[in-house]
Amino acid sequence: MTYKITALPGDGIGPEILKGSIEILETLSKKFQFEYDLVTKDFGGIAIDKHGEPLPPDTLEACRNSDAILLGAVGGPKWTNPKNRPEHGLLGIRKALNLFANIRPTIVTESTAHLSPLKESIVKDTDFIIVRELTGGLYFGEPKYFNDDQAVDTLTYTTDEITRIAHIAFKLASKRNKVVTSVDKENVLSSSKLWRQTLEQVSKEYPDVTLNHLLVDACSMHLITNPKQFDVIVTENLFGDILSDEASVIPGSLGLSPSASFGENGPSLYEPIHGSAPDIAGQNKANPSGMLLSLAMCIRESLHQPECAQHLEDIVFNTIKNGIATKDLGGNNSTSEVFEAIKQSI
Amino acid sequence: MTYKITALPGDGIGPEILKGSIEILETLSKKFQFEYDLVTKDFGGIAIDKHGEPLPPDTLEACRNSDAILLGAVGGPKWTNPKNRPEHGLLGIRKALNLFANIRPTIVTESTAHLSPLKESIVKDTDFIIVRELTGGLYFGEPKYFNDDQAVDTLTYTTDEITRIAHIAFKLASKRNKVVTSVDKENVLSSSKLWRQTLEQVSKEYPDVTLNHLLVDACSMHLITNPKQFDVIVTENLFGDILSDEASVIPGSLGLSPSASFGENGPSLYEPIHGSAPDIAGQNKANPSGMLLSLAMCIRESLHQPECAQHLEDIVFNTIKNGIATKDLGGNNSTSEVFEAIKQSI
Ligand SMILES: CC(C)[C@H](C(=O)O)[C@@H](O)C(=O)O
Ligand SMILES: CC(C)[C@H](C(=O)O)[C@@H](O)C(=O)O
Repeated sequence: MTYKITALPGDGIGPEILKGSIEILETLSKKFQFEYDLVTKDFGGIAIDKHGEPLPPDTLEACRNSDAILLGAVGGPKWTNPKNRPEHGLLGIRKALNLFANIRPTIVTESTAHLSPLKESIVKDTDFIIVRELTGGLYFGEPKYFNDDQAVDTLTYTTDEITRIAHIAFKLASKRNKVVTSVDKENVLSSSKLWRQTLEQVSKEYPDVTLNHLLVDACSMHLITNPKQFDVIVTENLFGDILSDEASVIPGSLGLSPSASFGENGPSLYEPIHGSAPDIAGQNKANPSGMLLSLAMCIRESLHQPECAQHLEDIVFNTIKNGIATKDLGGNNSTSEVFEAIKQSI
Repeated sequence: MTYKITALPGDGIGPEILKGSIEILETLSKKFQFEYDLVTKDFGGIAIDKHGEPLPPDTLEACRNSDAILLGAVGGPKWTNPKNRPEHGLLGIRKALNLFANIRPTIVTESTAHLSPLKESIVKDTDFIIVRELTGGLYFGEPKYFNDDQAVDTLTYTTDEITRIAHIAFKLASKRNKVVTSVDKENVLSSSKLWRQTLEQVSKEYPDVTLNHLLVDACSMHLITNPKQFDVIVTENLFGDILSDEASVIPGSLGLSPSASFGENGPSLYEPIHGSAPDIAGQNKANPSGMLLSLAMCIRESLHQPECAQHLEDIVFNTIKNGIATKDLGGNNSTSEVFEAIKQSI
């Protein structure tokens, strides 16, 4: 079986971190003996420049026909037209491919704990996953408009949408520490009342998993004061946006965190959680770890090579431990030096 | 002129921290020679128990006729009826008295910097204020309902609502470091587009104040990685709820932070940002600092005694510095011992 992968380098540091990661994939595929076809397509700002829109039909078509999508990063100060933004490509691809489940692990390893803005004693051994609903809520609900006098956005969820994301969280937790923390604003929002009641319902199918509820404002505190308490956090789209970005600073560098987005049957999308970092683009300075760890998630989940994925994750963290790291991690190596060291270790 | 104050002790630790604070107010009023009338009313859970609702008409009437309201805290596990909750009293009083501007200072003093979950080097000298819009957005927008199949909440803002909260932020900033950071989700929400454009409009009236825009997800990171950068943050209701709670852990104890809520003409409401802490209620353990600093805000803004307010703030922080503090601050004093020490220093 030959897996199909679409690579979307995007903007800023996207192309440099994705190019090196694809070379790593190539080396890994030889060692672990699996096959794949990879095509590269324009997406984001570069697609606006070349095709007039951030998600051209040809790009979407390639993604649709793939098993996995590897995305670098999109956006930058260059694209200022509010009606035609790189980020619209992101929202568009999520909706078009029904990528409703965004998975973001937050792991603090021994070799990076000292980099956290939080005290080491608080972050040590942190290991949780945020499951963010990605195609519902305020992002897509109608009516959504503004004029000179007023503005309206609409937060909608169906029970089915909540049910399917709940199953993702419970399944993940049942393979981990068996605790789901559902985050909502149940004391204010109707959607959160339906959310909470649906989570309770789904939890009955997972008797070995504990379900806790936490208000979003309280969660924003607990992430800082006691991140170790969490195993799997599940929440709606906008809360997930805020909380997962908050969580992303815990490991000390944004450059460390991967993410995956899953649909119902179609392709899955893998991308580092950091942005396109236009200030350091093209300077061989970007930390490739987030992209490489996203690639590892892709290898595990879409290419079904768990050993290979584990091998890559181990190498990424060992390389840092051995002091070969970019500036954001306190090292003084370039992007290509990190890639080279990783390639040597395969 | 005799100022009218309504005291709402509420639930949990509310009564004990408010009672001691009222005694401090009495002592201060003698020293600084000002007069006030104070009535105490039921609010929150205790009002549900005694009158069947969290905000009885008699309580609301007293608040309406006051210059200032001092609130302890509301809520607790005892009140479980989702249709009749202590928190509904909070939402009710905000709406009834048009308390649209919630002000939450975050200050890290020398004597408490070591208590922060963040590294001392990051939090040292942090001093910013979050201005949260308190009567609009998802909290009150219609339609708002849920049934077995789906749920809807509505995020609405009028230009007028945004304009008036913007003025509060710019006025505050012009008396401080002259930087307003407006937080929105302009790349996704229509309401944020109107928000941003209205802030730009209002900023023209304050040429000496710099206006920055920051996305809510980015702000949740910056609060942790670099809280010192902020002077005045202004944001809509739900973002303000999440971000101000996140900010509240920076000083190291929730027990330290005060808040004030202002309307257009009517009374203002002052309350500590912590909750009712039912686990330690009645045990003489609660940290009264947040309540006392809220009282100081009340004395400054509603009783117009800035010297007295400053005196109280100095005493509160000096008492901690001198090691007289509750357990959450690393001390081993009781609530009443802290009150007594503060009274002695007046
Ligand atoms: C770019 C933006 C629309 C997007 C989001 O809010 O979902 C981003 O912040 C993210 O988290 O992937
Ligand atoms: C109790 C709740 C309704 C309230 C809010 O969300 O506004 C609280 O969290 C607050 O911040 O005062």
